[in-house]
Amino acid sequence: MANSERSGNAIAHVYRGTFVHSTQQTAVQILEDALLGVNTQGKIAFIGEGKELQRLSQTFGFSTSEVTQLAKHEFFIPGMIDTHIHASQYSYAGTALELPLLQWLNTYTFPVESRFKDLEFAHKVYTQVVKRTLRNGTTTACYFATIHTDASLLLGQIANAFGQRALVGKVCMDRNNSVKHYKETSQESQDETYRFIKELSKKEYPLVKPVVTPRFAPSCTEALLVQLGAIAKNNNLHIQSHISENTEELKLVQELFPNSESYTDVYHKCNLLTDKTVMAHGCHLSDKELALFRETGASLSHCPNSNISLCSGVLDVRNVLNHKVKLGLGTDVAGGYSSSMLDSVRRALDSSKVLKIQNPDHETLTFEEVFRLATLGGSQALSLDDQTGNFEVGKDFDALRVNVAASDGPIDLIQHEEPKILLEKFLNLGDDRNIVEVFVAGRKVVPFTEPTSA
Amino acid sequence: MANSERSGNAIAHVYRGTFVHSTQQTAVQILEDALLGVNTQGKIAFIGEGKELQRLSQTFGFSTSEVTQLAKHEFFIPGMIDTHIHASQYSYAGTALELPLLQWLNTYTFPVESRFKDLEFAHKVYTQVVKRTLRNGTTTACYFATIHTDASLLLGQIANAFGQRALVGKVCMDRNNSVKHYKETSQESQDETYRFIKELSKKEYPLVKPVVTPRFAPSCTEALLVQLGAIAKNNNLHIQSHISENTEELKLVQELFPNSESYTDVYHKCNLLTDKTVMAHGCHLSDKELALFRETGASLSHCPNSNISLCSGVLDVRNVLNHKVKLGLGTDVAGGYSSSMLDSVRRALDSSKVLKIQNPDHETLTFEEVFRLATLGGSQALSLDDQTGNFEVGKDFDALRVNVAASDGPIDLIQHEEPKILLEKFLNLGDDRNIVEVFVAGRKVVPFTEPTSA
Repeated sequence: MANSERSGNAIAHVYRGTFVHSTQQTAVQILEDALLGVNTQGKIAFIGEGKELQRLSQTFGFSTSEVTQLAKHEFFIPGMIDTHIHASQYSYAGTALELPLLQWLNTYTFPVESRFKDLEFAHKVYTQVVKRTLRNGTTTACYFATIHTDASLLLGQIANAFGQRALVGKVCMDRNNSVKHYKETSQESQDETYRFIKELSKKEYPLVKPVVTPRFAPSCTEALLVQLGAIAKNNNLHIQSHISENTEELKLVQELFPNSESYTDVYHKCNLLTDKTVMAHGCHLSDKELALFRETGASLSHCPNSNISLCSGVLDVRNVLNHKVKLGLGTDVAGGYSSSMLDSVRRALDSSKVLKIQNPDHETLTFEEVFRLATLGGSQALSLDDQTGNFEVGKDFDALRVNVAASDGPIDLIQHEEPKILLEKFLNLGDDRNIVEVFVAGRKVVPFTEPTSA
Repeated sequence: MANSERSGNAIAHVYRGTFVHSTQQTAVQILEDALLGVNTQGKIAFIGEGKELQRLSQTFGFSTSEVTQLAKHEFFIPGMIDTHIHASQYSYAGTALELPLLQWLNTYTFPVESRFKDLEFAHKVYTQVVKRTLRNGTTTACYFATIHTDASLLLGQIANAFGQRALVGKVCMDRNNSVKHYKETSQESQDETYRFIKELSKKEYPLVKPVVTPRFAPSCTEALLVQLGAIAKNNNLHIQSHISENTEELKLVQELFPNSESYTDVYHKCNLLTDKTVMAHGCHLSDKELALFRETGASLSHCPNSNISLCSGVLDVRNVLNHKVKLGLGTDVAGGYSSSMLDSVRRALDSSKVLKIQNPDHETLTFEEVFRLATLGGSQALSLDDQTGNFEVGKDFDALRVNVAASDGPIDLIQHEEPKILLEKFLNLGDDRNIVEVFVAGRKVVPFTEPTSA
C-alpha cells in the first residue's frame, strides 16, 4: 500500500496547523492540528491529522523534521478567487464613482481603456494589478483586458510570470459611439480573438488561459455575439461578459435586441451561456432568467462594491443560491474601487444586510457562506473547481497563510480566540498585512521574488 | 504690526505643501503650496501662500530653513473625528454581528462590558483602542466606556497619555434585566457620575473631558435621565446617548415611556437635548424630531457600518442636512466592526448610494461632503469646532500627514494626479499606512513615542 501511495509525485512541502476551508456540505470546515502535504507538482497529496505524522511520513516519504509548523494565530485558507476584474481599469480605482454605468463607461472607462494600445502603459498597469491582487490574496483572477490583443497577451505573460492563476480576456466590442478609437469592426474582433487564443495557447502557461470576452450585449452586434459563441464552442473555451447590471442598461438591451425575450435570452441565443460561462452582476435578473442560468450551467459573479458604488442595484444572492445557480464574488475593479477580495466579502455581507433592512423576512448571508463564495464558490463559477477552491487531495495547493496577529497589522487581539473567531476577524478587519504568504499551485508567489520575465 | 503679530506665542513648526480641508462654504478646499505655522501652544498661527515665505518668516519670527516641506503625493488633512465609539467593545470588534441590536446587547455587549470592573483588562483594551484609533487618524474620539468609574477614568488617563483629544463617558444605566451584575441603582449612577466628573476634571488633562452618558432610554429610568440632564446643565457638560437605532428599540421606548410623544421627546423632557448633545444613529427619526434637534442644537452621529452590520436601518443623511441638524460620523465600535474613520467615510457613501438605488430621486452624498462630515462636521457635532475640525487660524493643529504613495501601502499610482484625485484615492483605498504622521494640538502623536504614564 505504501508503494501505491508513493507512486505519485514526491512530497515537496508539509504544513502543520489549522486549515480553514469550505466544502459543498459545510460553509466553514476547520481542521485543527492538521497535516497537509504538497507534492512536487504543486498538488495536495494528503491531508491528515497531526497525530498521524509518523504514519504519513512513512507512507509519503517525507522527513518529520521538514514539516512547517504554523504559529499561534496563523491558519491556511484557500486562495481567494476574483471572478470579475477589469485589469485595464486599475489606474483609476478609487475614483470616478459618481456616474451611473453607461455614462461612467463613456466618460471614464473607454477613454482609459483606449490607452492600452500603448504597451508600456499596459505593462505598468498590468504589473501593478497582478502584484496587488496577489498581495491581497487573489490566487485566481478572471480578467477583462481591453480590445488590444498584444496588451492582453502581455497581461497573460505578467500573470504567468508572477504565478497567478488567471483567465484573460481580450475584450470584443464592435459597437461604441462614445469614444471614436475604441472599437473594432466585427471582422477585426473575430480575427483578433482567434489570434489572441492562438498566441496565448502557444505560450503553454500552466495557469493562464484565454476566455472569450464579449464586453456586454450593448457593445456587440448580434452577428459578433454569434461568432464569439461559435469560437468558444469550437475551442472549448471559457466565456465571460456582463449581464443585467443596471436598469438603464436593461432598457437599452431591449431596444437593441427587440427579438429577444430577455437579456439572458440575448446571450443564450448566441450560444454564450455554457457551463464555462461567467456573467458579472445579474442584479436585475428574473427568476425565469436564473432558471436558464441553472439549466445551462452558466454562473454569476457578484460584484457588490461595484453595484453599490455605481448605484446599479443590489443582487439578491439568497435567491440566486436558492435557484442553484453557481456564484462567485468579484471586485469588478474599477466600478468596484477595491481590488481586495476581502472588500468583496464585506460588501457582499453588507448587501445582504441591506436587503434585510428593506425586508425583515430576508434571510441574510452568514460570513461563513460568503467565505465559501470567495473561495469554493468562485472556483465553481469559473469551472475551475477540479483544480482549486478548497483543500481537497488532488487539487492544486492555492492557499493563503494568514496571521491574524501579524505585527504592525490592522488587528488587535486581547485574548486567545478560537479559529472561527480568528477567521471572522480576518474577514472583517484583515488586509494584506495579515496574508503573510500566498501559494499558487504549490509555488510561493508572495512575498514576491522577482519574476524571470515580464 | 510685526510686534503685535509676534505678541502671541512663538512659532514651533512651519509646514509647506498641500493642505486639504473643509469650510462651511466649501466641502473640499485645496491649498496648494501653502505655508502653515503652528505655535508653541499647538495652535495654528498663520496660513499663507508659499510665495509669502519671506514676509511670513519676518512677521512670525521663524527661520526659512526650518520649514518642513511635504513630499510629492503628500498632503495634510484635518484629524478625523469619531463622534461615537464604544472603547469597551473593542475586544470583539469584527465579530458577533449576526443579531439585531437588543439581542446583540444582551448576548455580546453587556457580558463583555461587565468585565471592565477588572482594571487590568480595561487597561489592555483601552490602550489598544486609543493607539489603534490614533494610528487610523482619529484625533478626536467621543467615547463610551462602561458603568465602572475607575475604568472610565483610566480611559481618560490613557487618551491623555497618548495625546488624543477625547470626550469620555462613564455609562449610566439603572435598567438591565439581561446581565445581572451589569447595572447600577439610580443613586449609584448619579453618585458615580458626580465622582467621575470630579475626578476627571481634577486631572486637568488639556484635551480630555467628561461627557454625561445615559446609555440610552431603554436602559435608564426617567428619574435617572432627569438627574443626568440636571448634572449636565449644572456643570455645562457634553451629553451623549443613542436614539432611534432600530425599529424594535423604538417600540420598546414607546412602551417604557408612554407619556412621551416620541423618542426624541423622551430626552428633550429630561433636558438631555442641548447644543452640547450628540446622539448616535437616529435612523428612524421623523422630520418633527429632526426639527427638535435643530431647535435645541443637538447633533447626530451617523454610524453607517454599525447600522448596516446590525441591520438597524439606513440614515437619510441628506434629509438630516436639509434639516440643518449638525452631523458627524462615528465608527460605533463594535456594532460597527471597523475602528477606522476611513471605513466610516466609505460606508456613509455606500449608505447614501443604497438610498439612491431604492429611490432614483435621492441626491447622493459626494465624497467631498462625506470628507467634511468626518472632519469639520464631527467637530461641530461635538461642539468642539472652536478648537478643531479644519485649518483655521486660532484652532489647534489637529492634522494627518497623508502620503498616498507610501511605500508598502495599499495604493498604486500610475501617474501624477491632482490633489483632489489623491484625496479621493486616499478616502476610498487608504489605510493607516498612508497616515504617516498624526498631530493633536501641534504634538506629533503618531508614530508613537512611549507615553510617560498610562
